[in-house]
Amino acid sequence: MTIPKITLIGVGLLGGSIGLAARQRGVAGQVTGLVRRTESVEECRAAGAVDVATLDLAEAVTGAELVILCTPVGGMKAMAEAIKPYLAPDAVVTDVGSVKASVVTEVEPVLPRFVGSHPMAGSEQTGVANARSDLFENAVCAVTSTDQSDAACVARVNEFWTALGSHVISLPAAEHDTIVARTSHLPHVLASALVNAVLGQLREGEAAFLGTGFRDTTRLASGSSAMWRDIAMDNAPAIEQAIDDLQAELATLKTALNAREATALETFFAKGQEFRQQWITGLKDVERE
Amino acid sequence: MTIPKITLIGVGLLGGSIGLAARQRGVAGQVTGLVRRTESVEECRAAGAVDVATLDLAEAVTGAELVILCTPVGGMKAMAEAIKPYLAPDAVVTDVGSVKASVVTEVEPVLPRFVGSHPMAGSEQTGVANARSDLFENAVCAVTSTDQSDAACVARVNEFWTALGSHVISLPAAEHDTIVARTSHLPHVLASALVNAVLGQLREGEAAFLGTGFRDTTRLASGSSAMWRDIAMDNAPAIEQAIDDLQAELATLKTALNAREATALETFFAKGQEFRQQWITGLKDVERE
Repeated sequence: MTIPKITLIGVGLLGGSIGLAARQRGVAGQVTGLVRRTESVEECRAAGAVDVATLDLAEAVTGAELVILCTPVGGMKAMAEAIKPYLAPDAVVTDVGSVKASVVTEVEPVLPRFVGSHPMAGSEQTGVANARSDLFENAVCAVTSTDQSDAACVARVNEFWTALGSHVISLPAAEHDTIVARTSHLPHVLASALVNAVLGQLREGEAAFLGTGFRDTTRLASGSSAMWRDIAMDNAPAIEQAIDDLQAELATLKTALNAREATALETFFAKGQEFRQQWITGLKDVERE
Repeated sequence: MTIPKITLIGVGLLGGSIGLAARQRGVAGQVTGLVRRTESVEECRAAGAVDVATLDLAEAVTGAELVILCTPVGGMKAMAEAIKPYLAPDAVVTDVGSVKASVVTEVEPVLPRFVGSHPMAGSEQTGVANARSDLFENAVCAVTSTDQSDAACVARVNEFWTALGSHVISLPAAEHDTIVARTSHLPHVLASALVNAVLGQLREGEAAFLGTGFRDTTRLASGSSAMWRDIAMDNAPAIEQAIDDLQAELATLKTALNAREATALETFFAKGQEFRQQWITGLKDVERE
């Protein structure tokens, strides 16, 4: 698969990594990146992320077969409207936003050939200087087509992510958002809540008692607060539901603690131990295959 | 410091590691271990954890200058009463229980020369076969003396843990229990609750979306459920309070989610990021010293 011209709207960690991977793998004949600052033109070239970096929207979009929106989720609708006048009639558009229902609902009416994507890759780092050509290798990429989606557009988006080494999973946008609220956003929210409840109200002498367990459990709290604010804004209802599910578990535990019910307490911890063991064992099976 | 005879009541991971460390460091002239099963006698000898392993309580305790209770917290009072008849008048007694107020309250009236300890060391492994002579090196060891404690007994217990390479921190038993509920028990409880809320109610297709973030945040859930049942039983009120503190953070977050308050959401995540960064930076400073 070679796409003559791919355009990245925004060239940060994700956009830059797409550019690097598409160029190295011969997936793109040419990669153009739209940036907002003059300095970024040189940064993109230095990183090898694009063939052409430009601040000119018309230049960036004109003639592209595939346009990938790599800008914050909150501004996707405005960006879709901005690129629309320059878009070739058969161009396919996708994005990399980590929340999908709001994006699909807003962008699809503007750009009928839009199909939402969420490559499950990234790191605590940001910026094109940290872009990596292997960022999407063996990563899961959710593709959230709708009843309105053009089958050829969906196929093209699926092929593109597959060509970058990702495993495509197709599912509805709302289901995607519910799942990532549970598997990704809830762990992050808990890590931040744990830091705020302990480190934010540190008792005298308490620091000496914080060890590797606390460090690992709170690792996610070190992510970008601006990015997580946006995710929380965009996926608020699903995150609230995920928190409710977690709080139901804590309520069960508190009842058992309050009544000193040894059996119920052991069941709570044994479930956690067993479910996690089954999951980890399954992961090892997958890795062996 | 050489103590002519040290007796370990129970020789598992912790007792075995104390025996190994005390023998290697010359802290003990002789280490005797009391075990419950005949097979354990040979296991203790094979691990090099003791000089003498015995099933005979009188033999184990008689002539010991220091007796260390390494049995489950729930049975400490009964064990104190069992060893009392054989204990030398000047023998010092301590323990390794991870909860302290209940132990001190129950054991001190039986054995006035008892001083509670909690070496903050261990692992997901159990049993004397996993014992390590360096388990207590650079570990924090809480020592929880009371107004009734004999100063010479406290000094002896402090010296003992220091001789094994630990950093002794002296604090009241109730304060210890409050602190470990927040720094250790709360992260564990959250890891288990997160596993139960997600893996225990897994949605179709959801497993593909679980990554390293989920794995690290839930690592503690793989600990022994029997051990954590006991800890929860012994430290229930402090754990309930720690859960309340965490739930207050979640309640703040849910209010901000519900009202889509971008500033409040960013503050929640920024606090988590900054407090954790300060803590990690502080740890690195300590390591450099």
